[in-house]
Amino acid sequence: MKIGEAIKKYRVRPGEKVDFRTIDASDCSLFANGGKVESQAVFDELRDELQALQKVLYAQNKHRILIVLQAMDTGGKDGCVKHVFSRVDPQGVSVKAFKKPTEEELGHDFLWRVHPHVPGNGQIVIFNRSHYEDILAVRVKKLFGDEVWKRRYRHVVEFERMLAEEGTTIIKMYLHISKDEQKRRLESRLANPAKHWKFNPDDLSDRARWDDFQRAYEDLIEKTSTDQAPWFIVPGDRKWYRNLVVARIMVDTLRSLKMDFPKPAWDASGVKIV
Amino acid sequence: MKIGEAIKKYRVRPGEKVDFRTIDASDCSLFANGGKVESQAVFDELRDELQALQKVLYAQNKHRILIVLQAMDTGGKDGCVKHVFSRVDPQGVSVKAFKKPTEEELGHDFLWRVHPHVPGNGQIVIFNRSHYEDILAVRVKKLFGDEVWKRRYRHVVEFERMLAEEGTTIIKMYLHISKDEQKRRLESRLANPAKHWKFNPDDLSDRARWDDFQRAYEDLIEKTSTDQAPWFIVPGDRKWYRNLVVARIMVDTLRSLKMDFPKPAWDASGVKIV
Repeated sequence: MKIGEAIKKYRVRPGEKVDFRTIDASDCSLFANGGKVESQAVFDELRDELQALQKVLYAQNKHRILIVLQAMDTGGKDGCVKHVFSRVDPQGVSVKAFKKPTEEELGHDFLWRVHPHVPGNGQIVIFNRSHYEDILAVRVKKLFGDEVWKRRYRHVVEFERMLAEEGTTIIKMYLHISKDEQKRRLESRLANPAKHWKFNPDDLSDRARWDDFQRAYEDLIEKTSTDQAPWFIVPGDRKWYRNLVVARIMVDTLRSLKMDFPKPAWDASGVKIV
Repeated sequence: MKIGEAIKKYRVRPGEKVDFRTIDASDCSLFANGGKVESQAVFDELRDELQALQKVLYAQNKHRILIVLQAMDTGGKDGCVKHVFSRVDPQGVSVKAFKKPTEEELGHDFLWRVHPHVPGNGQIVIFNRSHYEDILAVRVKKLFGDEVWKRRYRHVVEFERMLAEEGTTIIKMYLHISKDEQKRRLESRLANPAKHWKFNPDDLSDRARWDDFQRAYEDLIEKTSTDQAPWFIVPGDRKWYRNLVVARIMVDTLRSLKMDFPKPAWDASGVKIV
């Protein structure tokens, strides 16, 4: 997987049509010379590089990185965070998971609960679910009238434009799994008592609306993939490949910032420790 | 001062040109039949009505009211809040004053420190200074390159559109005083030891840039007065008139929401307290 290849292949260009039925969730075409075992060394190298890049990011205290992760249930958001970021200093990376909004959150605009958690200088923040749930779930589950989620497309685009123009690099990733793969993963959660806590009977009612969710996601990604905040559709059926692609996109994006450790204001050779 | 008159006269329509040199800061044309003493009874009535309207707002728990107050130093922001809102239940009204941004705030987008304080359902929030300082001061004091404050016009317009479409009523008021009136008020602060804490020698350097600030304010009000978040230019040289106008605008705006106490889900006549 060469530098830039994953970004080029999986990035949704502004205005591009999205049809999940034509996107193979088990694609692993950028690593044709092997599978999970063969990719391990490459993945390890990417993780080392990510770790090194985060150090500079933190030291330079200038850029802000926001990663938005969305997927259907069992899509792999948690696993992806765990594997890709496991070597990065937790001091500079935080994960913010968004659950069902509270009554107080519903008493404010939908970005109110999100905005306080965006990254500051030198930070990486990962949104595990995000403001996009307040378009997607609101639409599919008809929580409010249609005018609400429709207006919110503009709100998120302008919100992200503001964040980007003020200095935030935004990467939005949709982890794309097939309906069959979701079946396998849900069954595996049911079969393993140690995974029961991850199973929620509500997931089944969402699964029953699979097609509605898929169409809503396609529309959402089409309308909100912009130059300043692009969406990536990452094939998610093979976990090793998904992790490889996410790590590659992260590394390539951070590299493109051309960061450097800040020059000290003093001369290191002139300092004596006595 | 009839219902609707103050809104009509002092509201800046979208696209309207603003030239402070043609706006009389000592205007009191909507109360021609007297001065401070004669207006007191009218003002008291308005305050009572505001108090009553806030009660319904709070009980109904549906609307959100955001008031943005901006002015040159000594323009009367504090006095205006104190007089107009003095009878309103403090439980449903809060004032958020924005000072010079901290280092952490500067490490985020300029709306990051503002957004958490917008009103929730049933609340009135008054911004004493606001996100507009991050356009105005940044421009006049050349804190960042010109591209920064120029981009922020769009950011605030879209931010306020989002708030409004999500259910917030926004009223922005610029308290307009003359340069002579500022001189009198600064001198009075200097002459009175009990007012020394309100005097800041930095105010003088801002006063030295009076014209720059005035032109920047004109441009800002022109470019950010929208249907969903209008600016009002309130004549500020006569404090009694300023308070009267602000109270009238508040009352008329709250009235226009046609609020009502929520109907209980139970029948009051059927409840016996034993």
